[in-house]
Amino acid sequence: MEKRNLETCFSPALFEADLHRDSIVVIIDILRASSAICTAFENGAASIIPVSEVEEAMDYKKKGFLVAAERDGFVLDFADFGNSPFNFTKEKAEGRTIVYSTTNGTGLINLTSSSYMTVIGSFLNFSALTKWLLKQDRNVLLLCAGWKNRFNIEDTVCAGAIAETLMNSNQFLTICDSTYAAIDLWSLAQPDIAGYIEKAAQRSRLRNKKLDDCIQFCLTPDYTDKIPFMKNGVLIDIMSIKGEF
Amino acid sequence: MEKRNLETCFSPALFEADLHRDSIVVIIDILRASSAICTAFENGAASIIPVSEVEEAMDYKKKGFLVAAERDGFVLDFADFGNSPFNFTKEKAEGRTIVYSTTNGTGLINLTSSSYMTVIGSFLNFSALTKWLLKQDRNVLLLCAGWKNRFNIEDTVCAGAIAETLMNSNQFLTICDSTYAAIDLWSLAQPDIAGYIEKAAQRSRLRNKKLDDCIQFCLTPDYTDKIPFMKNGVLIDIMSIKGEF
Repeated sequence: MEKRNLETCFSPALFEADLHRDSIVVIIDILRASSAICTAFENGAASIIPVSEVEEAMDYKKKGFLVAAERDGFVLDFADFGNSPFNFTKEKAEGRTIVYSTTNGTGLINLTSSSYMTVIGSFLNFSALTKWLLKQDRNVLLLCAGWKNRFNIEDTVCAGAIAETLMNSNQFLTICDSTYAAIDLWSLAQPDIAGYIEKAAQRSRLRNKKLDDCIQFCLTPDYTDKIPFMKNGVLIDIMSIKGEF
Repeated sequence: MEKRNLETCFSPALFEADLHRDSIVVIIDILRASSAICTAFENGAASIIPVSEVEEAMDYKKKGFLVAAERDGFVLDFADFGNSPFNFTKEKAEGRTIVYSTTNGTGLINLTSSSYMTVIGSFLNFSALTKWLLKQDRNVLLLCAGWKNRFNIEDTVCAGAIAETLMNSNQFLTICDSTYAAIDLWSLAQPDIAGYIEKAAQRSRLRNKKLDDCIQFCLTPDYTDKIPFMKNGVLIDIMSIKGEF
């Protein structure tokens, strides 16, 4: 079998849509959007509607939707709750459609709409995601959400973990420096991920806002086997339409 | 003394000009533009005029200037020579003004014109540059040229080496994830830089075009004490106007 291409992109500002029309794009925003989305599906959410703009989230709220919305870590006042995965409990999420708007993550999901497929990656769904990616016959782009278009350490480390597993399968080739760098940073982080990301700017931001209670949880591997993916503008669990893949 | 801010930017596409109006920007494009520019000054070049567009380089050639110009590693046919530092010999460079246009590096120099100062960094002028930066009372941005706006390993490793030296001085603070990542990648590369950058895409590009004869040279620390810097659209050696700094 011809080898597939694996690339990593460190910022939405570096995403080259034209190069990835045939790729599966994995969006990684582990502190906290992609972790929260995985948690929501584990707790039974039916679907998540990602929206970029606050006004759009507000309109959905008026229509009676459950709305999760934050900017810079803080819950917007009209929203039901914010961006911590701990908000997406079974009590709140089960069977519901949740509208979700965050600083970085959700705008990104819409940015990749021209790609073959967009899925959500985190440590929480690591094994399910990598096993699933290995079964597809597609190029893969790991797209780190970063922070306001900047490189960040925590998403890069998660991308490196995914990239290492994919490369070890011998199904993939890469000539992408970002992928090699991500794998190397993952190798440094792996013995103590929480310790390694202590230096991350987002770690400090969350600590300063007392929003860091969920970090250890966000680094938990394989909390769920859900793979949220984008279909017609809405995130659903890929297993709910298993027959298609 | 209040600590200065150190940041690293992995791609021209991520450069935020407004944040760096008061910073010294160090442009790093070690394979091969920043290494070639350092070599030119070591060999006595009077000045270098960086130009972004091929047409502009061509106009200078018509006016009788010595022109170095390449795209994707290949010398443009009207130019006197291309991008290898080995071209910038004493015989050719001494006392001359050289017009220089490359795929990535020279456009970048003009991009940073709103910053306090733009200087050229490479392994070749490592100690001179870091010592000089430590003497200035300015924030510093390490700006990696990358390749066509993509992250690259070789410039990141050089940025990491510079960042490590600056951070070790205790004069600088950083809350920049890119800086921490660059330092960590440098720590992996340091024992065998040439071996480490074997995986870099630019390493393969240069090998494929048989342009890789200069790589070991480009990794040589402290070949020169010249610090090329931008003044009124022209690069000159900072020591030639030493009184100002």
